[in-house]
Formats: sequence, structure tokens, C-alpha cells
Amino acid sequence: MNTIRFPQKSEWAAIVERPRLDVSQLEATVCSVLDDVRQHGDAAVKRYEEMFDHVSLDALAVTEAEIDEAMTLVDDELKAALELAHHNIAQFHEAQAFAGKKIETVAGVDCWQKSIAIEKVGLYVPGGTAPLFSTVLMLATPARIAGCREIVLCTPPDRQGKVNPAILAAARVAGVSRIFKAGGVQAIGAMAYGTESVPKVYKIFGPGNQYVMAAKQQVSLHDVAIDMPAGPSEVCIVADAHCNAAFVAADLLSQAEHGIDSQVLLITTAEETIERVKTEIDRQLGRLPRKEMAERALANSKLVLVHDEDEAMALSNAYAPEHLILATDNYEELAAKVVNAGSVFMGKWACESAGDYASGTNHTLPTHGHALAYNGVNLDSYNRKVTFQYLSEQGVRSIGRAVVCMAENEQLEAHANAMRLRLQRVEQQPEA
Amino acid sequence: MNTIRFPQKSEWAAIVERPRLDVSQLEATVCSVLDDVRQHGDAAVKRYEEMFDHVSLDALAVTEAEIDEAMTLVDDELKAALELAHHNIAQFHEAQAFAGKKIETVAGVDCWQKSIAIEKVGLYVPGGTAPLFSTVLMLATPARIAGCREIVLCTPPDRQGKVNPAILAAARVAGVSRIFKAGGVQAIGAMAYGTESVPKVYKIFGPGNQYVMAAKQQVSLHDVAIDMPAGPSEVCIVADAHCNAAFVAADLLSQAEHGIDSQVLLITTAEETIERVKTEIDRQLGRLPRKEMAERALANSKLVLVHDEDEAMALSNAYAPEHLILATDNYEELAAKVVNAGSVFMGKWACESAGDYASGTNHTLPTHGHALAYNGVNLDSYNRKVTFQYLSEQGVRSIGRAVVCMAENEQLEAHANAMRLRLQRVEQQPEA
Repeated sequence: MNTIRFPQKSEWAAIVERPRLDVSQLEATVCSVLDDVRQHGDAAVKRYEEMFDHVSLDALAVTEAEIDEAMTLVDDELKAALELAHHNIAQFHEAQAFAGKKIETVAGVDCWQKSIAIEKVGLYVPGGTAPLFSTVLMLATPARIAGCREIVLCTPPDRQGKVNPAILAAARVAGVSRIFKAGGVQAIGAMAYGTESVPKVYKIFGPGNQYVMAAKQQVSLHDVAIDMPAGPSEVCIVADAHCNAAFVAADLLSQAEHGIDSQVLLITTAEETIERVKTEIDRQLGRLPRKEMAERALANSKLVLVHDEDEAMALSNAYAPEHLILATDNYEELAAKVVNAGSVFMGKWACESAGDYASGTNHTLPTHGHALAYNGVNLDSYNRKVTFQYLSEQGVRSIGRAVVCMAENEQLEAHANAMRLRLQRVEQQPEA
Repeated sequence: MNTIRFPQKSEWAAIVERPRLDVSQLEATVCSVLDDVRQHGDAAVKRYEEMFDHVSLDALAVTEAEIDEAMTLVDDELKAALELAHHNIAQFHEAQAFAGKKIETVAGVDCWQKSIAIEKVGLYVPGGTAPLFSTVLMLATPARIAGCREIVLCTPPDRQGKVNPAILAAARVAGVSRIFKAGGVQAIGAMAYGTESVPKVYKIFGPGNQYVMAAKQQVSLHDVAIDMPAGPSEVCIVADAHCNAAFVAADLLSQAEHGIDSQVLLITTAEETIERVKTEIDRQLGRLPRKEMAERALANSKLVLVHDEDEAMALSNAYAPEHLILATDNYEELAAKVVNAGSVFMGKWACESAGDYASGTNHTLPTHGHALAYNGVNLDSYNRKVTFQYLSEQGVRSIGRAVVCMAENEQLEAHANAMRLRLQRVEQQPEA
């Protein structure tokens, strides 16, 4: 871990810099798999499943019987945990429902927005040894609340052609419509273009490795929307002298265990906090099964000592972390100063893993500095706000001349004419 | 114009298909200009301004004196029109302000969203003979309402190095912070990377030609967010037997005059409406200065006769038009059936040009079928919804075990441990 004491403002750029993620060298491979899936549909998906996931599949669709079986394989404690997490995620996302207001912007001109669900969405959940069933809850629960008509989930099967039971159980709890055995670039292609089995969707959500990232980028150029750009997970903790060092160390480690490219940043106003946290990290690290991975991530981490809390928050805002933990007594004051972050955890009891799993907030968040311009997945991510407008004859009187004048000045004569015809008609009639 | 009577469902795909927009062949040129701007800043921008806009610029920034001068050059009628349009756009976008609710998802767990403005946004407004000052109002007004700290506008100057006065006047009315003389790829690069003069922004908005589109796509992969993918403008009109054919024809023509690639689709349940509208188009077309362009766009347009209104709306939803005009008696019933559209115009007085200029709705809308997954620019486009959460000790009791169980099952031991430590601490204390 690198300890940086009282950095100059000119050093901030280096502190907040992320490694550049360039997936363009994967482009040729990714494009050829995508083209193949576009042209050959299911046959291509099955071929790549054989090649990359080492499994020969008769059918891509997961059957109801397979989901029923999975429900018997998941133990009751985990099932109850899934139900509780789903309840909380549903509570939070249901509260995001949009109630549009009709606005009379000027006499006779009514404008409003209506939130309408995207009809078909695709969720990607990576496979591997650690099944990310929590991501299924995070992506499918708001899709269901929004009212998406078709919620498609793709996830790679194991070598026996089975999907992890916890993923299937989470999918049933959250209300996924259809599940397919497909991973990687071929899964993204299947959802972007549609195949005989997999429906084409209009927006794709979910995490993945660099091939999945590159595939999502590629299909987003023409064919389908995506949730947000991806990057390695990261946490920033702002801690004061009174923080619980064991908690802070545990939170830093929970981020570091994600992978060697995970980003960890501690900002503190208290010199002693740095030493206390370092000691706790050493104590806790030994017991972790993912010790080596966490150690490598920590090697790139930074512990930064600053003069005061304003400087701490300014540095955090410059970093724009995916997760921000405010481990200070005055977390409310600091929260008011947040400008750039994905999700903020306040006080000593709110660990990142609370939000990763079960508090109710979404864990699909902007990483890699994208919090400067993006927010995490929320109910709006599954909706479009369509605008509507109604003009009465009075409305034509209110804005007609301005429209004609502006259209003429933009040299769009047909635009002017469309309003001019209406103005003439209205002016033939006496004002009500 | 192509008239299609009672198409089979199998023919719909061909009716709603747009020409594929592939800007990848521009990639090499665009990337080299972007790289040059990234490396050489203002000097590169000025060099490309000389090359493409045939103007030699001493400074990129527009001065206050230049804006003052522009205000004297814009006539009073246009100034009043700009003020009225700005008022209405402001009314509608102010009403979109987000009031987050704090939700206790389960005892002791509070979650909420806070809307926070993107700090720096960049607006691109194309130049050319027809100055799109209306786009300045549409992009800058909500940016200002959201509270973006820096609102940068780039637009190409003429050969005398001047920006069109109406653009400068609209920028002042709408509250743009800084205006720069730069167009095309070099403008997008300047805002994406920052130069000595132009600040780096976090999100770029605005229309442009295919080079600008390709540049926005390119910088959106790593460096900056963009408003939405672009495409040629389009309108779909659903009309019944009672529609005003002169109004419908004028609305179709106002779309067709945008360019030869503009898309125009009329769907009607009344055979006679097709003939009446065709006659009106012929009558109005002769008087248009952009007659040739409109004629070429109309050559690709489609007039479709369907059996009933449900079929009309289903076809419109399959098309997912940028603009949808409901020129029917029962426009309210039809509006309720809209699933995919950018902006909907209801009744005979609401022409598209009302929304293009002055009703208050935004005219930056998803084209090219992107309305399936995207909405137009609105107040949210300039904000991020950051999530916050607070857990009390009761909160740890409520969700702690579920978090530990889920983390263990995802084999993320450090995630489990961060909550386990807190659970242990809480359980040492008697429940309140």
C-alpha cells in the first residue's frame, strides 16, 4: 500500500488516475464472433459454448423443470436471504416510480412526460466458480417493477450443461421471463441480434470480463442500448480519527478481493488512522481465501492523508468512486458534499457489502471514473420518458408566431408553413 | 411516395427498416483528428478550423463583446421568440426536478437517491447556412436548470471568424457559460480531452453530421458520455378519415425538408386520406425553397393503409418514431397505446414544429429506432441519481445474516467478513 501524506493539488491527477482499459485489441475476435452469431444464430452460439465453455448443448433455453430442480438444491437459509434481499431491492426501486405532471407551459400548450418500460431487456450474468446470483436480483427486480414485457437472462452453463442453482433460484424470485445457457461474446450477440431461441432485446445489462465488455461496446454502436461502460470495481473510504479501523480494513479488503485490478483508496484527516488501518489489514488478510488476489490489489492501493474534511471530499469527488464509504462521525455533513460517486455508505454500520447484497440499493454502479457522468442502474434504466404535447387553438395563438419566426430564421420554410397554416385557420375564427 | 395497402405482418420489418448508418469507414480520419487534438490542443483545433472551416482564428473563445454585438444584430421579433421559447422550455424542464424519497426498506436500513448535476457538460451546435439556434435553447436550458457548473458550447464560425448572432443570442438567453469557435471532429475532441482554451467536459450533447456522430461514438468509448446515438430525423403520422389533409401534408413536408435521408411515414385507416394528403403535398411542395431535398426524402417515404387503429398503433410502435403525430379525433385513446416513440403530438393543432421550437418539450430525440431503448434529452440527462444508504445497529440486525449468507455463497469471504465483524459487534450489545 502506498501512503501519500499531504499531496499537492498537482499530484491529485496521479492519485485518481485509473489504468486505461483498452479493449480495442480484442475487437477483431469479438467482431468475428458477433458476426457469426448474427448470421448463424443458435448454431453459432452452441459452437462457441463448446469452444469456450467446453459444453455441448442440445438446447439453449433453461426449462421450467431445471428451475424447479434448482429450487430444491438451494438451501433454505440462502433462499430466505434471496427473498429478503429481493424484498428490499423491490421496496427501494418501487419507490422510484415516476409520476409525471402535466404542465401548461403557456396558455393552451400542455406538455408532459410518461414513463414507459422498455419492452425487451437482456441481462447478462457471468459464470465461473462464484455464481453472481446477487446480480440477477439487482438487474431483474427493477426490470420487473418497470414492467418490461420480456426479461431475458443469459449465463454460461458448467461443463455438465447446468446453470448454478442459486442463479436460477434468484431468477425465479426476481421474475425473469426466460433463461438461456450462453456466456461471453456469443451471449451478447444472441441478445443483440436475436437467434431462433433467444429473443432480440433492446437494452443489455450486466457485468462481464473484457470480452463481454468489448462485445457490449460493439453492439451498442448500432444495435442495442447498454446499461453503462464497465471497469474494475473500486471503493473510496473517507475516515476520521474515530473510525473503527477493523471495519475500515474489512471494507477495503472486501473490495480488494474482487480482483487484482480492483481499486482501493483511503482518505483520512488522521495520521493515526493510517497506521491503525494498516495493522488491521495485516491481521485480517491472513485469514482470507482470496489473500493473494487481495494482496495484489492492495499493492496498487493508496492511503492518503489530507489536511481537513473539505480536502478529503474534494479529492473523493475528483476520484468519482463507484462506492464511497463515509466512516466519520459527521457523515451527514460529508454526504452533503458528495458531487461524484456511484453509491454512498454512511456511518460505521453501512458496509459496502450491505449494498452489494441486501440493503435495497442497486449494486450495478459506474466504475472507472464514469460516476462523473453516469449513475448506477435504477428504475429509470428500464424506462423511457416519452414526451407528449397537446395544443388547443389558444396554444397556436400563444406560440404560433414565435414558431414561424424561429423556423424562418433557421431557413426551414416547411416547418414555418406547418404552423402558419394552423395560425391562419385559428385567426379565421373569433377568439373564444 | 410508396403507398402500401394492408401489409401483412411479415412485411412490417421492411416498412420500419431504416438504412444502416455505418460510420466505421470514417474511423481512421476521425481517430487521427481526435488524437491530434488530444496531443496538440488549441493548435490542432485551429489547424483543422483552417482546413475545414477555411478560417484563421487567433482565439477560440467567443468574447463578451462579441455576444453583446450579436444581441444588437438579432431583430426584436426573433429575440422575443427566443425568450418565449426559453420560457416554455424552462417551465417544462423545471417541472422535471427530482424530489427523492428516503425509504426504510427494512427496519434500520434507509436508502435514498439524490439528483446531482453533472459538473461540466459540452454542447455541440452545427454551423452552416441555417443556424440551429433552437438547439442551443434545447440543450442549454435544462443544463442550466440542472445546475451544471460549466456549460460549454462549441460551434463552427463562418469564414470571417464570426459565430451566427442568433446562436450567440440563444446562448446568452439560455445561460451558456463559455462559447468556443470550433466545429466538427475537432470540437468534439476539444470538449472530450480539454485544450488550453476549451475545458474538458464529462458529457457531450448535440447533433452533427456523420463525422461529428463518428467522433462522439469514438470518444464515448473511453473518455466522456454522450447524449444518445444519432440518426436522420423522422416523423410518423397516424391519421384518420377526419384529419386535416393540409396540416398532415405540411407536417410530412416539414420533416422531409430536413434532408434527403429524412424518414416520413403516414399510417391511416382511411383510403381517402392517402389521396387527400398526396394532393396537398403536391400543392404545397411547389412553394418550398427546399423543394428538391424534400422531394428526394419523399421518394423514400411510405403511406400505409391499415385495417384499424390498433393495427396503426402496433405498426407505429414497431417503427418507434422520433416524432409521432396523432392526427385523429380520438388522439387521447391512441396516445395511451404508445409504447415506442420519442415525442408525441396530439390533435390537429400540435404540429411537430411546435415541439421543435417553442412548446417546451425537448427536440433532441432518439431517431433511427433508438426510441425502443432511449428517450430524448430531459432534465435527467444532465443529472446523476446518486444512491445513499444509512444503516443503524438495527439495520445490521435486519440484513446482516442475509448479507453474510449471500457473500459466502458467492465465495466472497471478505465481503462476508465486513458484515460479520459488524454483526458480532452489534450482538455484543443488548437490543434497544
